[in-house]
Amino acid sequence: MAGPTVKASVLHGAKDIRLEERSLPPLAADEVLVAVKATGLCGSDLHYFNHFRNGDILVREPLTLGHESAGVVTQVGSGVTTLQPGDHVALEVGLPCGRCELCGEGRYNICREMKFRSSAKAVPHAQGTLQESIIHPAKWCHKLPRDVSLDLGALVEPLSVAKHAQDRAKLPSGSTVLVFGAGAVGLLCAAMAKVAGAKTVVIADIQEDRVRFAVENRFADASIVVPMKRPEAIADKLEFAREVAELVKKTEVEGQAVGEVNAVYECTGVESCLQASIYATGPGGKIMLIGMGNPIQTLPISAAALREVDLVGVFRYANTYAAVIELLASKNPLLPDLSKLMTHRYSGMENIPKAFDMAAKVKDEKGNLVLKVMVDM
Amino acid sequence: MAGPTVKASVLHGAKDIRLEERSLPPLAADEVLVAVKATGLCGSDLHYFNHFRNGDILVREPLTLGHESAGVVTQVGSGVTTLQPGDHVALEVGLPCGRCELCGEGRYNICREMKFRSSAKAVPHAQGTLQESIIHPAKWCHKLPRDVSLDLGALVEPLSVAKHAQDRAKLPSGSTVLVFGAGAVGLLCAAMAKVAGAKTVVIADIQEDRVRFAVENRFADASIVVPMKRPEAIADKLEFAREVAELVKKTEVEGQAVGEVNAVYECTGVESCLQASIYATGPGGKIMLIGMGNPIQTLPISAAALREVDLVGVFRYANTYAAVIELLASKNPLLPDLSKLMTHRYSGMENIPKAFDMAAKVKDEKGNLVLKVMVDM
Amino acid sequence: MAGPTVKASVLHGAKDIRLEERSLPPLAADEVLVAVKATGLCGSDLHYFNHFRNGDILVREPLTLGHESAGVVTQVGSGVTTLQPGDHVALEVGLPCGRCELCGEGRYNICREMKFRSSAKAVPHAQGTLQESIIHPAKWCHKLPRDVSLDLGALVEPLSVAKHAQDRAKLPSGSTVLVFGAGAVGLLCAAMAKVAGAKTVVIADIQEDRVRFAVENRFADASIVVPMKRPEAIADKLEFAREVAELVKKTEVEGQAVGEVNAVYECTGVESCLQASIYATGPGGKIMLIGMGNPIQTLPISAAALREVDLVGVFRYANTYAAVIELLASKNPLLPDLSKLMTHRYSGMENIPKAFDMAAKVKDEKGNLVLKVMVDM
Amino acid sequence: MAGPTVKASVLHGAKDIRLEERSLPPLAADEVLVAVKATGLCGSDLHYFNHFRNGDILVREPLTLGHESAGVVTQVGSGVTTLQPGDHVALEVGLPCGRCELCGEGRYNICREMKFRSSAKAVPHAQGTLQESIIHPAKWCHKLPRDVSLDLGALVEPLSVAKHAQDRAKLPSGSTVLVFGAGAVGLLCAAMAKVAGAKTVVIADIQEDRVRFAVENRFADASIVVPMKRPEAIADKLEFAREVAELVKKTEVEGQAVGEVNAVYECTGVESCLQASIYATGPGGKIMLIGMGNPIQTLPISAAALREVDLVGVFRYANTYAAVIELLASKNPLLPDLSKLMTHRYSGMENIPKAFDMAAKVKDEKGNLVLKVMVDM
Repeated sequence: MAGPTVKASVLHGAKDIRLEERSLPPLAADEVLVAVKATGLCGSDLHYFNHFRNGDILVREPLTLGHESAGVVTQVGSGVTTLQPGDHVALEVGLPCGRCELCGEGRYNICREMKFRSSAKAVPHAQGTLQESIIHPAKWCHKLPRDVSLDLGALVEPLSVAKHAQDRAKLPSGSTVLVFGAGAVGLLCAAMAKVAGAKTVVIADIQEDRVRFAVENRFADASIVVPMKRPEAIADKLEFAREVAELVKKTEVEGQAVGEVNAVYECTGVESCLQASIYATGPGGKIMLIGMGNPIQTLPISAAALREVDLVGVFRYANTYAAVIELLASKNPLLPDLSKLMTHRYSGMENIPKAFDMAAKVKDEKGNLVLKVMVDM
Repeated sequence: MAGPTVKASVLHGAKDIRLEERSLPPLAADEVLVAVKATGLCGSDLHYFNHFRNGDILVREPLTLGHESAGVVTQVGSGVTTLQPGDHVALEVGLPCGRCELCGEGRYNICREMKFRSSAKAVPHAQGTLQESIIHPAKWCHKLPRDVSLDLGALVEPLSVAKHAQDRAKLPSGSTVLVFGAGAVGLLCAAMAKVAGAKTVVIADIQEDRVRFAVENRFADASIVVPMKRPEAIADKLEFAREVAELVKKTEVEGQAVGEVNAVYECTGVESCLQASIYATGPGGKIMLIGMGNPIQTLPISAAALREVDLVGVFRYANTYAAVIELLASKNPLLPDLSKLMTHRYSGMENIPKAFDMAAKVKDEKGNLVLKVMVDM
Repeated sequence: MAGPTVKASVLHGAKDIRLEERSLPPLAADEVLVAVKATGLCGSDLHYFNHFRNGDILVREPLTLGHESAGVVTQVGSGVTTLQPGDHVALEVGLPCGRCELCGEGRYNICREMKFRSSAKAVPHAQGTLQESIIHPAKWCHKLPRDVSLDLGALVEPLSVAKHAQDRAKLPSGSTVLVFGAGAVGLLCAAMAKVAGAKTVVIADIQEDRVRFAVENRFADASIVVPMKRPEAIADKLEFAREVAELVKKTEVEGQAVGEVNAVYECTGVESCLQASIYATGPGGKIMLIGMGNPIQTLPISAAALREVDLVGVFRYANTYAAVIELLASKNPLLPDLSKLMTHRYSGMENIPKAFDMAAKVKDEKGNLVLKVMVDM
Repeated sequence: MAGPTVKASVLHGAKDIRLEERSLPPLAADEVLVAVKATGLCGSDLHYFNHFRNGDILVREPLTLGHESAGVVTQVGSGVTTLQPGDHVALEVGLPCGRCELCGEGRYNICREMKFRSSAKAVPHAQGTLQESIIHPAKWCHKLPRDVSLDLGALVEPLSVAKHAQDRAKLPSGSTVLVFGAGAVGLLCAAMAKVAGAKTVVIADIQEDRVRFAVENRFADASIVVPMKRPEAIADKLEFAREVAELVKKTEVEGQAVGEVNAVYECTGVESCLQASIYATGPGGKIMLIGMGNPIQTLPISAAALREVDLVGVFRYANTYAAVIELLASKNPLLPDLSKLMTHRYSGMENIPKAFDMAAKVKDEKGNLVLKVMVDM
């Protein structure tokens, strides 16, 4: 029995997306067919779209992008008991090996054999979600309650990054947190910190509009705008980083300076931000490395080590979807209105290139912030 | 140089409180003199008052009660730099040895040589706070910001128990929590669980008024009233406990049954509650043992062990005051109005016996709940 | 394609083991066929053999016992790349659902849908290893290096319990540990504690021969023999438990009394042992609940809670096989000679009833200790 | 009452050590007078001796060096009950404030107001132990049992660094560990890893003699000699680091390649070593930052973050002395003969400059390794 034929958007080279028909294999017993409805575009998608690579990872065969998606189940495999046609689901698109030690310990996000949709790391590439329908193991399709929209369902993926960062940080309630980067992931990390009982969240970005958005919409309590300096020499760079850290420490919330923070959620991957993170964090604090940016960074590493400020990696997420979906379904008053993050929307696969063009901008032609660009199908 | 003479309420036997003059020693360099202003009465105070003992601990010399207190600094020792006369402070009244391994590790609450005011465990007894002024190490006097009242300052002590329970439970955000006991400590545990991002808090008590108070005032999301059965045989007791656990699991929040909980804050010390806690908790969950009650309990211990449900002790608190005071000063929308807990108030030391009589009641003569009885001085 | 037919020992009622032919299904792609070679008999096997039940769990259909086994791979499924015919493997015989939250977090041992060979909990029962060959997922067959014998391979299962207890206890090196019960599991827990850097391991049992064996063979540093008192009243029981705890604390190692211990590995499931464990553990310590015995126990729970002595459940194991096999292959001088545990050996399925009869004894007819009874096939 | 006058070695400038008389203040109630007997020289002492500074920290007044010391109590303050004249003690020479949040939590090693003997960080400088006698709080003098020599007592300080690293790493038994640097601290970290149950310890150094010493004396199971390349460009540096990591992974122990390690104890502070550490560590591993060296390092930080390899600071130690002394008193067969570390010895304060000259060497004039240089007094 052959599987269905679906329309897919396929990247064949930089900015070369083509709409194609793709034959899916027959549904296995533990799989479901999901009509993809809402997909958020992510920075890694954008890198692939613009450069046909993502950092060191070259695309080696035609690749469908997209991995922040929700959809509707249209068919279920013979052994599937947890889902039925019509169910709305958020897609967890990384398929780990399930056999290795890391999978066994529940750290499947760092499984060496992970096959993550829309990533070109593994060959053959696991195709992304920007296609009409995908076949996916039922286990990795997380049912959405009816009061969580498909749009929010697509946001479960980036929220999972924030939840995973929170889980790894294990901050006690009452902590003071700095978030570097007020893009989608930074904003979601800020929101998750508030939900977990952070006393104060300060958000930092080079874009004033972004941090203003963050504070006005209760993602953060206070903010700083990082100056646009680009010093050359390492001594000047570190001096600049110390200045940025001072800006953070002097930021006032309810008339009181924030001081050294307990933790940083570093969502930019920018060297100067990680340098400033080290200086802004108090002894015994943690810096969560979330943003992917400069792979090589020159860091004041002794300033971290001598005060037991730990640098903690955060790669994607594991075991987060259920909790995130429950959070979205909750009426937690600390959770900002996340729908405001979805600032731009394109319908139909033919508009995907336009969607990517918009995702590359900080502001649109009307001067509105571009945060998360959604593709409806 | 002699220290000041102060008026103190002193317990000489069951219900035998006398007002006496007491000479305080001269102030040491690292001490301050604090005029005690607000004191909440605690269950252990009440036991001492009624029985001149608390469980196994006999009072062996005249004892001033009171340990949930805030006051105003009136004098500071020569070496004190962190406080000055006029400062409002919450008193952390337990003085650990500061030298043992447990103190070294920050677990000073279980220091074997702890001297805790108003407790008769150590001899000579460390006198409690129900006196005009006390001399106390500056280190253990925590400054209150002006927007935290002295009443709330007195509440820092029981809130610290709740914070310590939370710290030991280390629950991820999104957890489902059951609180047994809707007295002051149970309510505060429920509030702290909400603040730390619990998805659902169910509170259970035999008093319907109490759980109604909890839900109406947003301490908890849902509640059950535990039936007043008192089975004799152990098999019947466990059957009853299973029934109570079923009540918890079937409790609906937003139309959905709560199911097995991730953690229980057991604040009653009652055997049937701990039994029901074991049955109500899902595999891998935790039961925080907070309430002091029956010292000997018959428990379905295999039902815990076989599902790795851990029984975790919570004794007082360590390293909690700063975070609790900051929480009280915050505008966290998840924090219920804690002033509602302070249901009754007595002014002047001569009214302390009346205050204890009220603290012994579940409801006052007008039918209002008795939660926390405060003594102003 | 039909699978192989094998000879199996099948329990049809108390002490009613019959040898039968059993048809195995065809091998799936991810499965292997393993000729079972060495099997250790476990207490749960013995309960099923003697009573056709294990505690509350009734056998509801013919059941092959055995779950501590190693064998030789004789055939591999089409998708198996990690094993080949001839490989020696230790069998991890519990098959979790792989989909639930607990499995996701790596706590598959407490998966609600666990199918564990030789247990009658799930229906249909997962058949045990006391048969010629079994079909098992390759993922759960752990390859043994050639210098680890099949006998020791069979011991990986009970050693995994000890390793899991150690993982959950997270003791720093230098800890003082008490082990209650000097049967196979207790001895293995003691050995694992030594390997993980425990300073002192005291082992306790009612059988003097057993604790002598433990100390002579370097499983433990010191021992106590628990007196055979059986008090009736709870006050007397607790008094007795306090006496046993005093025996522990006064035990001398190199001329120094052991004092309160940091952790107890409670491997008996006997009420008086858990009571004594609570009294013997210092503030902030942990009691690992490993032994399955009295499901209902009357405990001095306040004596635990007030000193933050935690009761931590240990159920089977998760993610332990690889580390245990590596330990067996190592030349760690702290590891006692584990082959000495395998005191009795029966060859051939027809001798299984005799093996169970021996496993029920503390000593054999010659007065030798009975620790682990092995069945060779 | 004036205190005693003692002879002290005092650093007045680079390589300018003078013997002087120093008047000690009278003994306070909680203090003891300790005749310093054995002192090990440490890298930071050597920096001060050679440069009158240590990294950024300038010496601002005459400074007595030395902080790895043991001695004999000669007088006790009026309130001291735990020590008496004649007791041998290991000195824990850092005095934290005891009041801050970090002290409260047991992380006193990173107390912002730490006064650490022989360090010029705080002003006035806390004077070191290279003097006849010091006055020290009894609390920070740890009694040595008679079978632990004063020499080994002086080694408790650097062993504490290794123990603290181990405590922060929280490795399960059976881990594979890489140690960078086979000087005293690296060797002690290796020894502590073995004691805590590491399966395999690989040690790496540029000095072949040192790693040979490590393996021959059972500090480590295997070793690599790091080539003496000094690439200029960052790409070449990282290429070199990858090569070093490959050397580690290919190192064979009992015929098997070590592969990616679970943790690194980085004891050099050298950039290329930390770079190689990142490449040598498997997903989910930890790198303990112990060595103080290049304060600014260029690191392949994404290679860490994307695999959740965490960089964990280790600064001195907290709550380690008791456990380390007990380890030294134990007969743990995994503990190498630590006396072999003390390769050179100088008696009398007048020979301290010679001792420092020797401590600066890798080998002495006879070609023997210089590891720990001891000063007897």
